[in-house]
Amino acid sequence: METMREFKERCARVRVIMDEKSVDALCLTPSADMYYLTGFWTDPAERPILCTLPRAGEPMFMVPRLYEEQVRQRSWIDDVQVWDEETGTVAQLRELLQKLKILEGKIAVPDRLWMSQFRLFQEAAPEADYVFTSEILGRMRMIKSEQEIRCMERAAQLAEAALAATFPLCREYSREYELAAHLEYEMRVKGAEGSAFETIVASGPNGSIPHHGSGDRKLRDGEFVTFDVGARLNRYCSDITRTVAVGKISPKMERVYNTVWKAYQEAVSAVKPGIASENVDLAARRVIVDSGYGEYFIHRTGHGVGLDIHEPPYIRQRDQTRLEAGMTFSIEPGVYIPGEFGVRIEDVVVVTEEGCRPLTKYPAEMIAV
Amino acid sequence: METMREFKERCARVRVIMDEKSVDALCLTPSADMYYLTGFWTDPAERPILCTLPRAGEPMFMVPRLYEEQVRQRSWIDDVQVWDEETGTVAQLRELLQKLKILEGKIAVPDRLWMSQFRLFQEAAPEADYVFTSEILGRMRMIKSEQEIRCMERAAQLAEAALAATFPLCREYSREYELAAHLEYEMRVKGAEGSAFETIVASGPNGSIPHHGSGDRKLRDGEFVTFDVGARLNRYCSDITRTVAVGKISPKMERVYNTVWKAYQEAVSAVKPGIASENVDLAARRVIVDSGYGEYFIHRTGHGVGLDIHEPPYIRQRDQTRLEAGMTFSIEPGVYIPGEFGVRIEDVVVVTEEGCRPLTKYPAEMIAV
Repeated sequence: METMREFKERCARVRVIMDEKSVDALCLTPSADMYYLTGFWTDPAERPILCTLPRAGEPMFMVPRLYEEQVRQRSWIDDVQVWDEETGTVAQLRELLQKLKILEGKIAVPDRLWMSQFRLFQEAAPEADYVFTSEILGRMRMIKSEQEIRCMERAAQLAEAALAATFPLCREYSREYELAAHLEYEMRVKGAEGSAFETIVASGPNGSIPHHGSGDRKLRDGEFVTFDVGARLNRYCSDITRTVAVGKISPKMERVYNTVWKAYQEAVSAVKPGIASENVDLAARRVIVDSGYGEYFIHRTGHGVGLDIHEPPYIRQRDQTRLEAGMTFSIEPGVYIPGEFGVRIEDVVVVTEEGCRPLTKYPAEMIAV
Repeated sequence: METMREFKERCARVRVIMDEKSVDALCLTPSADMYYLTGFWTDPAERPILCTLPRAGEPMFMVPRLYEEQVRQRSWIDDVQVWDEETGTVAQLRELLQKLKILEGKIAVPDRLWMSQFRLFQEAAPEADYVFTSEILGRMRMIKSEQEIRCMERAAQLAEAALAATFPLCREYSREYELAAHLEYEMRVKGAEGSAFETIVASGPNGSIPHHGSGDRKLRDGEFVTFDVGARLNRYCSDITRTVAVGKISPKMERVYNTVWKAYQEAVSAVKPGIASENVDLAARRVIVDSGYGEYFIHRTGHGVGLDIHEPPYIRQRDQTRLEAGMTFSIEPGVYIPGEFGVRIEDVVVVTEEGCRPLTKYPAEMIAV
C-alpha cells in the first residue's frame, strides 16, 4: 500500500505541472484522481466532497460531516473542513474559491465529474476557466511507480488465484452466476476490496457478447466459457480473461482458440518502449485477419489499467500514443461468432525497458476442464 | 424482471413530459436513466454509447461495435447503429443531432454524465440548450411501479438472507473482509448481479466511521459490528444495515443501541403520504437528541433507493419533498462515537397509502452472536 509520503510527493510533482500549464487549482471530487493525490477513496455520489489543491498554498478537504473522521485517517491532508448544512453548497463553494483567489482562475476538475456537480462549480464561479485534471495528471498516472506495479501485481495474483480455484468447478450444468459468485468470493476472502468490474462468465453462445456479465445459463459439454474477472486491491484494478473448453470441442472452436492465442502472443511480443500503441493492436489484428476471422474481432486490443479499470493508454487502431516503460495495459484479442461462441484471452502487461512483462503467469494455452 | 413493454410504455409517458417541458430529445448515455427507458444496462465508461429519444420520431442507439448484439438482445429499441471508427465521434454526433433537427434544440442529458463526455456534446452542438434528464424522469423514477417494488423486494431478500447466513460466522478473531466475502457470496450465488455498493463490515472503533468499508481488523468480544450491505438484482438495489453485538457489551453500548432502534421505529412510524421528508428525519433525530447523543448522529436519516443506490427522495433536514405512495427510501439512523463504536440500523421502506412497509423483515432488535 502506498504511504502518505508517496501521495504527498505526487502533489509536489503535480505543482510543477500546474505551473507549466498555468493551472491555479485542482478541484478534486471523488475519483481515482482524488485517491492518487490524497489517499482518500470513496465512490462518486451526490454528496459534495471536495479537495482543493492550489498551485501555491495548502490543500484542503471540504466534506459532509460523516466523512470527517475517515478523511483524517486516510489522507495526508491536515486541513479537513465540514460543509455547513444550513448554508447552500454553491455559496460556500464560491466563498472557498474566492478565498483562494481563483474565482476567475484556471481550475482543473476531474474528467469524470458528474455534470450535475459541475453545475455547482459553474454557478459558484461562472468566470473561471475549467480544464480537466487529465491534462495535469494524465501522463503521471499512465507511468506507474514500482510501488504501484507491486499493488497491481498483487491484485492480478488475486484474480489469477480465483480463476485457478474456479476452473475445477466448471462442469456440465454449472450456472454462470454460480461460477461468478465463486470467483468473487475467492478474491474477496484473500483481501480484495471487491471486483474491479462486473464479472463476466459467458458460456456457449453468450461468449459471443464481449460484455455479457453472467446469467443463469447452464454450461454444456462441448462449449467454451469465457471468464473475465478483476480484483480491486488497495484501489488498483486487475483484469484477466481466460476461455475454457468444457468437454470435447469442435475443430472450428480449436482453430479459433489457437488464432486468438497466437494474436495474444504476437501483441505481447510487439510491446516495447517507443512504439505507437496502434502497432500492438495491429500485431494482434493481423493474425486474426490472416486467419479469416477479422470481422469477428470487434473491439480494440487493450486498454490501460490502474486505479481505473479503463484508463489511458488505449491499444487501438489509429492511436499514436508512444509506449513507455511503466505503462500498464491489457492485451485482449478476441473472436466473437454470433450465435455460436466467443474466445478472448487477456492479461495486463507492464512495459519494461526491453519489452513487456505480464503481471500474471496463468497459462493461456487451451484449458480443458 | 421488467418486460420490454414496460420500458416502451415508460418512453410513451416520457414523451408527454417532454412536450410539457419543450424538451426536444433525451440523449441517454449509460446510466440508470438509460436502463429505465431502454432495458440496456452497462456501466459508464469511456466508450461513446448513446440512445437518442426524440420528442417525435423513433429512438435510436449508437454504440461501439462490440455492444451491437447485446443492445439488440436487451433493449426494445430496433434501430441500433454502430459508430464508424474512422470518423471522429464529434462529427458523427453532430450529424446525428442535425438529422434530428436539434442542433439548437433543448436536449436532456443524464445528471451523472461525465464532464469529458459532455464536452463532446458541446463541441457537436454548441448552440443547444442542455438540461438534465432528472427534470423529465425524476418524478417518474421516484414513484416505483408494483413491478419495480417486486424487484426491489427480491433484491432486499437476497441481502437479508445473506446477513442471516453470515451472523453465525461472527466470532472473536473473524476478520471484517472475510465476513464481507461471505455476505457477497451469499447474495451472488442466489442470483444477484453483484453488490449495490462496497460492503461495510465495521467492527469496534471502525464502527464510528459510517462508510468504513471493510479491512483486516479482527472482531473482539464485547464489540459491535456494523454490517451494511446491498444486492443488485435486475439492476435494482437493496440496502440493509444491522449492528450486531459480539459477546457481552457494556451498558453504554446497549443504551446507544436502544436509542438508535427507537429512532428507527419512530422514523418508520412517521412515514406517510403527504408529509415532508424532513419530518421523517426529525422523528429519528428527536429521539437521538433527547437521549443526549445528537452530536453523534452525523448524517441524514435516509436516501431514495432504486436503480441507483442513492437517488431522490432524500430524507434529511430542511427537505420539503412531499412523500407519495410508491416512493422507496432507506431509514437509517445511527450514532457514531469516535474511537469507541457506532450503531446503525437500516431498512428500505416503500410508502403505502396508509404509511409505509419495510421491504425486509429481519428483526432490528439487538442481535447478539
